[in-house]
Amino acid sequence: MKLLRHGPAGAEKPAILDAEGKIRDLSGMLSDLGGEALSDASLDRLRQTDLSTLPVVDPQRIGACVVRPGKFICVGLNYADHAKETGKAPPEEPILFMKATNAVVGPNDDVEIPRGSLKTDWEVELGVVIGTRAKYVAESQALNHVAGYCVVNDVSERAFQSERGGQWTKGKSHDTFGPIGPWLVTRDEVADPQNLSLWLDVDGVRRQTGNTNTMIFGVAHLVSYISQFMTLEPGDIIATGTPPGVGMGIKPEPVFLRAGQVMTLGIEGLGEQKQTTVEARA
Amino acid sequence: MKLLRHGPAGAEKPAILDAEGKIRDLSGMLSDLGGEALSDASLDRLRQTDLSTLPVVDPQRIGACVVRPGKFICVGLNYADHAKETGKAPPEEPILFMKATNAVVGPNDDVEIPRGSLKTDWEVELGVVIGTRAKYVAESQALNHVAGYCVVNDVSERAFQSERGGQWTKGKSHDTFGPIGPWLVTRDEVADPQNLSLWLDVDGVRRQTGNTNTMIFGVAHLVSYISQFMTLEPGDIIATGTPPGVGMGIKPEPVFLRAGQVMTLGIEGLGEQKQTTVEARA
Repeated sequence: MKLLRHGPAGAEKPAILDAEGKIRDLSGMLSDLGGEALSDASLDRLRQTDLSTLPVVDPQRIGACVVRPGKFICVGLNYADHAKETGKAPPEEPILFMKATNAVVGPNDDVEIPRGSLKTDWEVELGVVIGTRAKYVAESQALNHVAGYCVVNDVSERAFQSERGGQWTKGKSHDTFGPIGPWLVTRDEVADPQNLSLWLDVDGVRRQTGNTNTMIFGVAHLVSYISQFMTLEPGDIIATGTPPGVGMGIKPEPVFLRAGQVMTLGIEGLGEQKQTTVEARA
Repeated sequence: MKLLRHGPAGAEKPAILDAEGKIRDLSGMLSDLGGEALSDASLDRLRQTDLSTLPVVDPQRIGACVVRPGKFICVGLNYADHAKETGKAPPEEPILFMKATNAVVGPNDDVEIPRGSLKTDWEVELGVVIGTRAKYVAESQALNHVAGYCVVNDVSERAFQSERGGQWTKGKSHDTFGPIGPWLVTRDEVADPQNLSLWLDVDGVRRQTGNTNTMIFGVAHLVSYISQFMTLEPGDIIATGTPPGVGMGIKPEPVFLRAGQVMTLGIEGLGEQKQTTVEARA
C-alpha cells in the first residue's frame, strides 16, 4: 500500500493511493498515520478494505507521509562511495545523529535557506518508518518492526554541521530540512530494500545517482543496531544515509543551494519529491 | 507556580503544588502540561485560579513535569570547571546534541543500566522548558519564550557517547536516561536562573556541587543561539550542561554506576529527584 497525508500543514488527513492512481481518504478509518495506526494489525485491516468504498480526494497539498515523528534518526556516511567523496574513511559501525523533528515537511513544500547560510546541501535518502516498538531487537527480526519506506531529503547546512563547534545536529535541524514522502510504501511492497535506485536533480541537473545496494550497513542491521542504544517507537523515522553526489563533494569546487532553485528527487518504487528553495521565514 | 504531572506512566494528569505543599489536580483546567498549556496566557489563567477550589490528590507517582517533548536538546561542556575535568578546552560557542525523547521519565523512576554498559554516568542540569515558539529570537527577548525551569538528570553512557563512532546522541538516549521534574517552576518564581546551586549524590556521597553562575553560556544566550539553528516549540526542553563532579572526571580512577545504586539530586528552588539504578529491561 501507498499511504499518504493530504491537506493544509498541521491539518493533514490520512489517505491511500489506489491501483488506478486515485487518492482515497482514510479519515473514516484512521485518525492519522502514526503510532498504533502503523502496526501490522492496523495495516492488515487497511489491506482488507475495499478501497472503492472510500471517497476520492484531489489534494491541494501532500503532507509528510507520517505525523510528526518522535525521533528522526539519521545515519552518516553509510554509502561507501559517499564516504569517499567526503574524504573520510568508511565508518566501522553506524554513525548516528538526530534531526530535530520541527524539520519535517511535506515532499513538495518549500525548503528554507537559513539566515547566513552559504552551504545548504541536498541528500536523497531511503527513509525507514518504524511500525512497532523495537528495543534490543536481533537483526533477523528487525524488518518485522518496519512499517514501510519513504523518500527523505536530509537537507543539511554544512557550515552549521561541521564548523560551528561539534555535533552535526546543528546543521540538520532547520525548519523544512526534512521533507518526507510522498508515500509511506508498506514493507510488503518493497521486495528488497537493499536494491533500490535513488536520484536527485538540482535545476534539472542530475547530482546524485545511487543504489541502496552500496550501503555499508543495511536496513535490518541499522534497525537492530539503533535499538541497542534507544528504543524505536511507531512513527520514528530512520534516514539511512546518502549516495554520492552531494554539493560539498563536487569538484573542483563544491556547489551549494541558494534561494530560487528546484530540487527533484526520487527512489525506485517510492515516488518523487520536488522542492523550491526560499529565504528563511521568521 | 510549581506544576507537575501525577499518575501511572503514560496516563499522567496535570497538577499544581499549592503554598501548603498540597498537590491539587488540574485535569479540569488543562488536558496536559505541554504545547499551548505552557503559553503565558494559559499560565496566567492558572495563576488567577483559587487553588483551594481544586481537588487535593496524593499521587503514588510523579511523572515527567511536561508531556513527551518534541525535542530534548542538550548543551555540552557548558560549565568552565566541568570542561576542565574532561580535559577539553571550553567551547567557543555552545555545543548542542540531542537526547532521544524516549529517554524521558519521571523524577523518581528507575534508571536503567543499558546492556553491556560499563560507563553509565550522572549529570545534574538546569532544564529550561520552552513556553512559546522561538525562531531567530534575540537574546534580549529570549527569556520571554521560557515557560519555566526544572531539574534534569542527563544520564549518559560514556563509552556509547564517545567510543562508538562519533556523535554523542548514542550515549544519551537509552530509555530512562532523562528524568525531569518533579516540578516545572514557572519563570516568574526563578529570580535569576544564573544563580542557582545544583548538587548530586550517589549512595549518599556528594559527587556534584555547582552553581549556574559558572555557566559559560547563560540561559538567554542558549535560547537565542539554538533558535538560529532550529525552531524551539512549546514543551521543548533544553538541558543546559552539567557542573563538575561527573563519574568520568573522578581521580585517580573514574567511577560509574551499576545496578542497585541510588542517585539523589536537586537544584535550589526547583526540587529534588531520587532514582534507583536497575538492569535494562526489554
